[in-house]
Amino acid sequence: MGLVVQKYGGSSVADAEGIKRVAKRIVDAKKNGHQVVVVVSAMGDTTDELIDLAEQVSPIPAGREFDMLLTAGERISMALLAMAIKNLGHEAQSFTGSQAGVITDSVHNKARIIDVTPGRIRTALDEGNIAIVAGFQGVSQDKKDITTLGRGGSDTTAVALAAALDAEVCEIYTDVDGVFTADPRVVKKAKKIDWISFEDMLELAASGSKVLLHRCVEYARRYNIPIHVRSSFSGLQGTWVSNEPQGDRKVEQAIISGVAHDTSEAKITVVGVPDKPGEAAAIFRAVADAEINIDMIVQNVSAASTGLTDISFTLPKAEGRKAIDALEKAKTAIGFDSLRYDDQIGKISLVGAGMKTNPGVTADFFRALSDAGVNIELISTSEIRISVVTRADDVNEAVRAVHTAFGLDSDSDEAVVYGGTGR
Amino acid sequence: MGLVVQKYGGSSVADAEGIKRVAKRIVDAKKNGHQVVVVVSAMGDTTDELIDLAEQVSPIPAGREFDMLLTAGERISMALLAMAIKNLGHEAQSFTGSQAGVITDSVHNKARIIDVTPGRIRTALDEGNIAIVAGFQGVSQDKKDITTLGRGGSDTTAVALAAALDAEVCEIYTDVDGVFTADPRVVKKAKKIDWISFEDMLELAASGSKVLLHRCVEYARRYNIPIHVRSSFSGLQGTWVSNEPQGDRKVEQAIISGVAHDTSEAKITVVGVPDKPGEAAAIFRAVADAEINIDMIVQNVSAASTGLTDISFTLPKAEGRKAIDALEKAKTAIGFDSLRYDDQIGKISLVGAGMKTNPGVTADFFRALSDAGVNIELISTSEIRISVVTRADDVNEAVRAVHTAFGLDSDSDEAVVYGGTGR
Repeated sequence: MGLVVQKYGGSSVADAEGIKRVAKRIVDAKKNGHQVVVVVSAMGDTTDELIDLAEQVSPIPAGREFDMLLTAGERISMALLAMAIKNLGHEAQSFTGSQAGVITDSVHNKARIIDVTPGRIRTALDEGNIAIVAGFQGVSQDKKDITTLGRGGSDTTAVALAAALDAEVCEIYTDVDGVFTADPRVVKKAKKIDWISFEDMLELAASGSKVLLHRCVEYARRYNIPIHVRSSFSGLQGTWVSNEPQGDRKVEQAIISGVAHDTSEAKITVVGVPDKPGEAAAIFRAVADAEINIDMIVQNVSAASTGLTDISFTLPKAEGRKAIDALEKAKTAIGFDSLRYDDQIGKISLVGAGMKTNPGVTADFFRALSDAGVNIELISTSEIRISVVTRADDVNEAVRAVHTAFGLDSDSDEAVVYGGTGR
Repeated sequence: MGLVVQKYGGSSVADAEGIKRVAKRIVDAKKNGHQVVVVVSAMGDTTDELIDLAEQVSPIPAGREFDMLLTAGERISMALLAMAIKNLGHEAQSFTGSQAGVITDSVHNKARIIDVTPGRIRTALDEGNIAIVAGFQGVSQDKKDITTLGRGGSDTTAVALAAALDAEVCEIYTDVDGVFTADPRVVKKAKKIDWISFEDMLELAASGSKVLLHRCVEYARRYNIPIHVRSSFSGLQGTWVSNEPQGDRKVEQAIISGVAHDTSEAKITVVGVPDKPGEAAAIFRAVADAEINIDMIVQNVSAASTGLTDISFTLPKAEGRKAIDALEKAKTAIGFDSLRYDDQIGKISLVGAGMKTNPGVTADFFRALSDAGVNIELISTSEIRISVVTRADDVNEAVRAVHTAFGLDSDSDEAVVYGGTGR
């Protein structure tokens, strides 16, 4: 039996009862002969309460101090969890991100892990302890300041520690049973996925699936650390994310892994752009200089009569104002007519490695949307994903229609089978 | 203008408004040309709330993890305070005890500071920052674990940093105006003391005065750091504690500094102890082995007829049960008749360096108690203090009577003057 890293989110340790329940689960893993490292998030709403306090004392909290503040949350949950484990008669020690050797860059509030040196964790394990580590936090390499990794950072902490400690598996415990073929709140017949490849999981995460964040999956793929996403409440097998299905279990790769959707984006259309080299570059340079991440980009065919074209792109709604401001400022230099802003859009994505070798997926996708009366506004594709932008109001209906059309509904007899190669 | 260390207690930073008020006061000190280091406690009831959480997950919280938990409180208050200062347009950086170089021994929950290496604080100050330091916490020298200094530890942090940074003064901000000649809740006419020597302050602290803890005053005396105890609400001059009165201010040393009282102790009487060498040693060895601190000890004269004597001592009520158990266990070995436990006692202490050179203080003290109808059960003295034990019910009346008798009441024309030497 090897080393297991377990990560518990805030909803799993929301109160004293939750902490005691999680402690029992951890002790069970230890009793089964594993060395156990646990990464824990802040209890329930702690982080939001701390953010609220910060806003009361300062409208624009400073990065360094904000990170110092937020990291108090994990400090509380990890110490309580260690106490609860000791109360069950097992040895446990808690470690801050800094003590655990989580070294990051200096970008406060969204630092990136650049190294993990878990010497103290290794020592604690060798002495028979269960090691409890604060998620979401690290220490900057140059200034030795406390940093945080941004939303979902605890998952990344867990995967990074699993990689540094050469763990068998990184178990991500959450309040759902695993990764589903679609958001179960929208699609009642969504099925739990038993196994999914890193690649498909990356595309799902990038397309709006919230269970695992993109950065965490990317880290796991790079170091080939199997992730097991499962419920801290049920104890059932969840979803394995890895290169290959685990051990003896026969899990065939599905042609289509799932349908993701995202209504957190807005669309900006730059109208009347001269159709000449350098125009698109100028537009996206202005947006990039404002530190805005964009998602899809579509340029329409130029109208021959005017020599003008329109360029549309999508971006997080929260950054809409900033992008409009940046583009307005560069309007004369770039030379476009006007801007259109639309935050009533939604994105539906179909993800599956099977697309590469199965023709007709795209056609069936568009057919399903058409049959559901959903109009497509933008299209973008990767090798294993098709995404479309529709009206926000149409998203739920569209997801259900596509989920059914591809045989993903849980009472379907059989998933759709494609023959031949190419899409 | 030199370096000032300011310490703010939990009641001064109990909410966002308090933090903003304190931030203004800190910025004022900076504007006056000082380099400013601030030591801050956890907000209001935070520590009690964390203790409550710990008790919910484990009846006997482990030392190391308990310290990890409690130190989250100061992490929150210090980060918020730094943000509030930055919001006023001044630079501030917060530091944990570990980052500030507060090195302690490894006794969790009541660690002692063994070194202070404030390199990062010095750098922050040199770069023009106000440095905010978490009180009450440090890092153990051998294991690099987080430790806490016990109740009142933030005051000790402040004095220790003031010593290490060679500060002009250590300002202790609290919710009262300074040190008084008696507890103002008991004695309405108690006066604020403008200046008091380290020695008298040590005796007051040891006798029940709660404003400054004994350990903090002792540290300040050892390194000769003047302490200025003052209100974070009023901004008035408070009480200076030092070797000599500060600067030009003419403050004469009072003959009597104040009257302290303490109702937190209990009395144990060991009845029927054989009056022979080694008996007292055996009794107090048994108590010491149970790690109980005792205060006063009185042995009555042996009754000639029986050759037996009684030995009484006082100790914190909280440790009464433990002491009784330890003595019962050693009963046969020691050879006494029985134990009497009494937790309805109170201690009244009169403190003042003037006692050394003024005869009659003791007589006047006992006369005042007698006139108030207060019966004395035990007496103990030091060079500059007389303490008596009475019934708990008599304590408040006794304190008021002694305060008046020694001319300490605020509307007295003059304090009592003694002539001659010796007591």
